[in-house]
Parts: sequence; structure tokens; C-alpha cells
Amino acid sequence: MMLAKSLQKIKPSYIREILSVANSPDIISLAGGLPDEATFPLALMQESLSNLSTMSSLFQYGTTAGYAPLLDYFRECYQLPSAHDGIVCTGSQQGLDLIARAFINPTDKVVMEAPSYLGAIQVFGLAQANIESVSQQTDGPNLKELEAFFAKKDVVLFYAVPDFHNPTGVCWSLEVRQKVGQLCQQYDVTLIEDAPYRELRFSGDELPLASSFCPDHSLLLRSFSKIATPGIRLGLVTGRSDWIAPLNKVKQAADLHSSTPMQAVLLDLLQHNEFTHHLEKIRHLYQTRYEALIKSITQNLPSYCHVNTVNGGMFVWLLLPKCNVDALAKSALENGVAVVPSSVFYQDNNAASALRLNFTNANTEELNDAIKRLAKVIKQHCEIK
Amino acid sequence: MMLAKSLQKIKPSYIREILSVANSPDIISLAGGLPDEATFPLALMQESLSNLSTMSSLFQYGTTAGYAPLLDYFRECYQLPSAHDGIVCTGSQQGLDLIARAFINPTDKVVMEAPSYLGAIQVFGLAQANIESVSQQTDGPNLKELEAFFAKKDVVLFYAVPDFHNPTGVCWSLEVRQKVGQLCQQYDVTLIEDAPYRELRFSGDELPLASSFCPDHSLLLRSFSKIATPGIRLGLVTGRSDWIAPLNKVKQAADLHSSTPMQAVLLDLLQHNEFTHHLEKIRHLYQTRYEALIKSITQNLPSYCHVNTVNGGMFVWLLLPKCNVDALAKSALENGVAVVPSSVFYQDNNAASALRLNFTNANTEELNDAIKRLAKVIKQHCEIK
Repeated sequence: MMLAKSLQKIKPSYIREILSVANSPDIISLAGGLPDEATFPLALMQESLSNLSTMSSLFQYGTTAGYAPLLDYFRECYQLPSAHDGIVCTGSQQGLDLIARAFINPTDKVVMEAPSYLGAIQVFGLAQANIESVSQQTDGPNLKELEAFFAKKDVVLFYAVPDFHNPTGVCWSLEVRQKVGQLCQQYDVTLIEDAPYRELRFSGDELPLASSFCPDHSLLLRSFSKIATPGIRLGLVTGRSDWIAPLNKVKQAADLHSSTPMQAVLLDLLQHNEFTHHLEKIRHLYQTRYEALIKSITQNLPSYCHVNTVNGGMFVWLLLPKCNVDALAKSALENGVAVVPSSVFYQDNNAASALRLNFTNANTEELNDAIKRLAKVIKQHCEIK
Repeated sequence: MMLAKSLQKIKPSYIREILSVANSPDIISLAGGLPDEATFPLALMQESLSNLSTMSSLFQYGTTAGYAPLLDYFRECYQLPSAHDGIVCTGSQQGLDLIARAFINPTDKVVMEAPSYLGAIQVFGLAQANIESVSQQTDGPNLKELEAFFAKKDVVLFYAVPDFHNPTGVCWSLEVRQKVGQLCQQYDVTLIEDAPYRELRFSGDELPLASSFCPDHSLLLRSFSKIATPGIRLGLVTGRSDWIAPLNKVKQAADLHSSTPMQAVLLDLLQHNEFTHHLEKIRHLYQTRYEALIKSITQNLPSYCHVNTVNGGMFVWLLLPKCNVDALAKSALENGVAVVPSSVFYQDNNAASALRLNFTNANTEELNDAIKRLAKVIKQHCEIK
């Protein structure tokens, strides 16, 4: 069979492809967006997991929108307006895919920040959207560029990660959030706010969701991969009921529904009285690692490397002098450290030379070793000429 | 936002939509394709479920193709040729969706039996395929019609459920399997063999998979919803490696991967030394119910109702005189019995007047009561004129 046209241009995920290599014991991986599995709240999940075998109804076919008690909990916990609904997805990745399938026709215009989350580039690529890139500043997207796109009146969606952006770690300021909300309302563009890292803030004050400034011109994606565990594959989309209904229709065809036993375990976890403490612990741990990473970068990398500071999330963005970042990342892997080159986060070829460094899945010693290994490789690649 | 064009023609699943109504206590449901949850092998899964909380790596991000030990088990158990691969999906429903997304362009021709599985009609509808219907006989598809379609040389896929078809319960004869395999090879059409009910045979001899007669012109979908439990949402696609690879690429965007803890539990279950006994038990139970249903139909329904005999699966197909089956199903629901009208299984309007009756999720007494309630409604709808 021939590949469908929609698939022919899609690059496989670099990150997914190197996961197996990056897992080998002599490699320190700063590549994946992996939480530290030693922090997984399995102790808080133990009772629920053990009790599953007594709850046969959880193992029957369930409703497409999700396990009703979990949906009720979300409605309460996130204070959904009565005209809004939620749908539980097989990871927030599926939520994004459902949105694209429900609302995007080929050639429809979608705006994303550049660089941007690879999984979103793949989803909108599969939907054959026409992706426009708005450049990113230290406090969010360039608003003039954004408004210029919106003013053309053909933009359907603006996809964004306002809290601790993947890959750059940028967190939108309050003013940017307000302004984006206003622009989405003014130009009738839907904001797709992807918030997987929102709960991983370890410094600074929490800011309102960008979508809270345009509640009827937005859909919000939440992930439980970072605060619970990735392996359970659960995420949530919330927004206007008339926009959630079509997602249900696509999900019926896509996978009928997401694993109900996992949804029941997630509900118990979110309601566990130790869960807040678990969040505090991982925030503290990730802060310690982030600080160790920054210290090591400062000590070991040449001064022409620039790293941004972040208040949370999982990544920093290491800007390098113009170089072949793909070759650099390959050398790094050969030298025992896995990183992701900036090229994979751009849908066109205008990539800045940079590396995405994850700081949540290696301990402080490993982070320091990784940076030392990286220092050697960076010097080889950026100083030869 | 406007709905994507691909979604505008998709009917929501009647079966999914009425699931909640059909679950109310005063209604006997013969509507869903639900296994009996009292038979779920939870006792055999208990130890695995309890042990999950000690296995943190299962809760980390996993590889898209599936949990490696489970994939190894499938390779061994199903004796996959070395040039074939498998991909674990969020239910076999997702496998079908991935196939359509990887290989079908809008207007591409897909052949299905009529009537056919609603979930497949939805998937190929979303892919905007041009669906051609081949009529079904007691031993499988009408081969002359099928070859006439194939001979036009523009058919990409032939989707079929050769074992205990949904909705009719028809099981293809050996000769039909061989001939379909030969035709797929001759005309270079890919057979998509969907086999969720294959293990639910309670009489007659098991026949080779249809895809075994055209191994390099086919993809095989297996489901663990009927032999394990639906709620875990796990299925499998196997076939040529160069056809499985594109499914992986689509699945990266669709949901990254399926729940790994559930995959680990499934692996333990399939390897449990009581699992064969579990299968025997459900086959026996479903046979008893099937026989009770047939007996009740014979005793209670007017002689103008015709029901086919089946050797397994979950459904019988009750043929009625020409009538408004949607109105009849609605009346049935009002009279305390949920059934699925034939109209939902046809993508055009050429539906025979029939009802799909499930016999796996109600006990023999309930089945008898349901048929008595149905008898009244059928008489009202088919004898008025």
C-alpha cells in the first residue's frame, strides 16, 4: 500500500526514536521530557491498584468522554462553567490530535510559536494544516507578529504552551496572557492552551491560565503524565460543550474510550491527602536539579553558550553559536550524553542553533557529568571553523 | 470553530450513545457488544494488578509500538514471520483508525461487507474513503461482487470480520477464506481482517485466519476486549513490517503509546495457566445463552422473524419483514429492551430490516424476558399494515 499523502511529510519523532538508545546505561539522557520515575507516587496508588481486581465494572466498556466520577471531580476541581465540558483522553497528546481532527481542514491556518512542541507539529502536519510560526520572546510570543497573523482573518487556531514552554522553558507574563486572550476574542481565533508543565512551578507566582482570558475562544489541554505518571496515558481537554462534543465523536472512532481502570486510579490519586505533598516534593527535587544544571553550565560551558533561566517545567534551552546542531547532537550521543537539537522543534528550516536540555530525569551528579561531556562536544563543533 | 469537513457526515455511534440509557436497571440490553463483566478474569489479574505499584518503569513513558515483553510474547505466540511486526493499540478500534490514517486518502476506495461494523464505517468515513458495499451470504461475502470491485483496480482495502461477523454473526467458510486471500493477492488489495470474536467459538471447527491465505496482502487486528476485558483498551495489529512502521508514525501523534501498566497486566493474564480454562468457561456460558436466546426466539417471535444460527461470537441477526427498524428499536427501548436496528450498520440506505441481538451480556432468564418484550413490539410494528 502507498502511504497516505497526509503522512508522507511527517518526520518521525526524533525523541521517540532515540528513547531506546538514550536508555542504555552508559548514556546520560537529557533528551526526553521524562519525569523521574523514582518520584512516581506509586505508594499513593498502591491501594487503588490492588483494589482494581474487585471492581469489575471498571473493566467493562465505558463512556467515550471518560469515567464519570473522574469527570465530576474535574468539573468541581477546575470549576468548569456549566456551559463547558471535559473529555478524558489517552494522554493530552490525544486531546491535541482530536482537536486537529475535529476542527482542521487541509490548508487551514494554524499559528504556533517557533520553536514548538514536536508532537503538536506532527499533529497539525497530519491534519495538513498550514502552519505559521510566530517568534518567541522571553515573556511569550511576539504580539505584533501574532496580531498581524490574526488580522488576516484566516487563522483557525493558535497553539501555545504558556507555562514552561517545550522546548524553551519560557513562561508567558501576565500581560501577554491578557493580550493573547483579548486578541483571540477580537479576531475569533481559538487558543489551544497546552498546560502539561503548569504544576511544575518551583519559583515565582502562579499566573492565570491564558485561556481564562478567553474562556469561550479556547480549549485547554491538561496532562497527568508529569504530576501523576506518563504510563497511565491520561490527559484532559476542557472547554465549550459545543466544542467538546465533536471531540467525543472523533474519539468514538479513534479508540472508543481511554483505560477506565487507569482513570479510577488517577481519581484516587488526585484525591489522596498526600498528593499535594507529592507535588511539593517533585517541585523541590526538580528545582534542585535545575539549579545544579545551571551551575554546571556556568562552570563548564564556553561563555558563548547562553541558557535561559526558568521558574519551572522540565527544560532549559541552550543557545549556541550558529552550527550544525544535528551533527552536534549525534556527537554528543557518541560521547555519552543525549540531548535534542533545536532543528526538531521547527517546522521550517529557520532553526536557531540550540539544544533542549531536560533536568528532571537525571540526578545532580549525572547532570554535571552530562554537561562536562557536552562541553567537549560543543567546543569541537562550535570552535573548529 | 467550524467542524472539519471530514467530521460533518459522521453519525455518532448509536450504540455508544445509548449505552447510558441501556444501562438503566429496568432495561434489558441486547444492544451493546458487551462481554459479561461477571466473567472477567479479575482473579487471574489480581496479583499483577497488586504488583504494579512496585514496578515504576511501567509507569514511565514507553515505546510507541508497545511494551517490549508483550510484543515478544505476541511474536512467539502468533508465530509472526521475521518480516512481520506488531503494534499494540488502544483497543483494536485504534488499530483500524491508524490503518485508515496511514493508508487512505480522501476518495480512496474501500470495500466492506454490508452490513458492517459501525466503528469501521466511522473510521473510513472520517478518512473520507469511498466505501463500496459487497453483500453478505451465509458463508461470507458474495465473491462475484467482490471480484467485480477488485477488478476495477482502484480498491485499496477490503475490511472484513470473517469470524462471527458484527452484526450478523456470519462465519466465513474455508473456501471463502481461501478465495478472498487469492483475490487480494491477484488484484493487489489489502485485506484488513478484524478478528475480535475469533476466540469466542463454541461449536464447529476453528478455521484458518483469512489473512493466512494472503499474509503479505493483509493486516490483522486482534482485540483483547472479549477474551480479557474491554476496559483495559488493548488491541494488536500485525502484518508486514513496512506497513506496521507507518502505523507507529501515526500513533506517535495519536497518543504516543498505550497504557503500559495495562499491557503488563495483559501479558501476565495471557500467560496465566488458568487463562485457557477462563476461555473455555466464557465459551460455554455464551453458548448456553445463545441456545436460550434461540429457543426463546423460536417460542415467542412470529414465524416471519428469521434468525441465523451462529457458532460463536456475540450476536445473532434477527431478520424482520420490511419495517421502520429505527422506530421499532425506539419502541423496544420504551418497552424495556435495548436492541440495535439494522440501519446503523449500513453506510447507505439499503438496509435490510433486522435487529442485532447480543447474547453475552444478559442471563438466560433476561434473554427470555427480553424476547417476550420484543415480541410485543415486533407485532405492533410489523403487523399494523
